[in-house]
Parts: sequence; structure tokens; C-alpha cells
Amino acid sequence: MKLSMDRAREIAKALKFKDGLITAIARDFRSKDVLMVANMNEEALLKTLTTGLMHYWSRSRKRLWLKGETSGHYQRVRGVWVDCDGDAAVFDVEQVGAACHEGYYSCFYRKLRRGKLVTALKRKFDPKKVYG
Amino acid sequence: MKLSMDRAREIAKALKFKDGLITAIARDFRSKDVLMVANMNEEALLKTLTTGLMHYWSRSRKRLWLKGETSGHYQRVRGVWVDCDGDAAVFDVEQVGAACHEGYYSCFYRKLRRGKLVTALKRKFDPKKVYG
Repeated sequence: MKLSMDRAREIAKALKFKDGLITAIARDFRSKDVLMVANMNEEALLKTLTTGLMHYWSRSRKRLWLKGETSGHYQRVRGVWVDCDGDAAVFDVEQVGAACHEGYYSCFYRKLRRGKLVTALKRKFDPKKVYG
Repeated sequence: MKLSMDRAREIAKALKFKDGLITAIARDFRSKDVLMVANMNEEALLKTLTTGLMHYWSRSRKRLWLKGETSGHYQRVRGVWVDCDGDAAVFDVEQVGAACHEGYYSCFYRKLRRGKLVTALKRKFDPKKVYG
């Protein structure tokens, strides 16, 4: 999915950035598994919509961040949903490789089981080899 | 799902609240559709885990909020997933009624179609009758 900059700007106008940010949830477009949640500022949203690749705003590093820029694990946008308040969006994505820098397909790899957090997914890659 | 306060406190310890908050994503435990995204402070998380009903922290109203307290549209917790950073969680919930105060089952009822945002879900109830 790639929009023209004009169309992307119209979408951005319909959103309500809080402190300059919206919440962006990326999920696998086939399984609907949630892969990660992060923030987008207006620039990250416009880049995402016009390139078809997920971009985020890193609050800790204070910079625009193309998901996959170092790992090659890009997220191709297949669909976008916006919530009632306009301050959050769900992106259906085609995940290249794995979403989590720790090597799991999803960042949500820990699950509550009998009252304790356990690792519920298997690693897709060794994080030291890809990100080290 | 209901945990003892001791178990719930252990889970809370494993999380990293940023500015006192984590991001909480509620999704339908059957369809995996994302219903809403909001914030939880530690108290909201502990209440959620010990009562089995989703509680949030409202940043705008600055108070603890039991989802469904006015509408009756409670969310019963069926599962919990935590992300790598420990600052976000996905809750599999059984939604009573509908999640969105505008009457839609999910707050994410608008979808990008041919470059424009369109309403993609049908209302489950008339918001004026339930919330008015």
C-alpha cells in the first residue's frame, strides 16, 4: 500500500496527535497476531503511508526510525485501521524476518500461564547474529 | 482469569511503567480483532489481574477506570501477553456488548480504503441510548 503525499496528508489531518504522537500497533496481516506497538509522529505516519514501509518515532532515541533499517526486517503495510479518538492506528503488515529485536516473530512472546510469565514463542533468529 | 494479589504484584514487578504507565491493547479472544488501546498504571494492572475485568488509567480524566462501569460493557480477561520491553501488554478479552463508546464492537471501525478513511463496521448499539 502506497499513497500519494496529498492523500497521506489528508489521513494525517484526520488523526489527533497527542504530544505529537499516535499509538501504532503492527499486526501480522494473515494471523492477526500483534507484532509490536510503538509511536508515530506525523512524519513517521506520512513516510509509512507514502512508502508502504512502517516508520516509527523513537521516543528514547528521539528520531525517525524505519523498521528494518539495520536488521532488514521491514514491515510492509497491507491495511490501516484508525480508532474512534483518532489517536491510535492498527497496521496490518507483512513482516519480513521477525519483528522483535530479541529474535521472536512478535515482541509479545511472553504469556501469562498459571499466574506466571513464560516465554511462549520460539526464536526465529539469533539476535546476536542479526543485530550484533 | 483472576490472580491473587501476590501473583499480580509479581507480574507488575516484571513490567516497566514509563511515566507510570504501560500501553494496554485489548483484543477479542476469539477473532483476535483489536478492540481498543489505552493505558494502565500499576493500580489498573493490579485491579485487572485480580478481578479479571479490564481497568484502565484515563490520562484525560486522571482516574482509574473500570471498562464498562457506566455502560455495562465489561471486558473479561482471558489471556495476557507482555512485550520484550515490558512496557506494553496485549489482553485477550471477552467483550460484553461493544468496546467503543460510539456503538461499534471495536474502536478501530474506520479503515483505509482506496486512500480514504471509511467506516468499515456496523454499529452494535445506539450510543445515545447506552451512554446518554
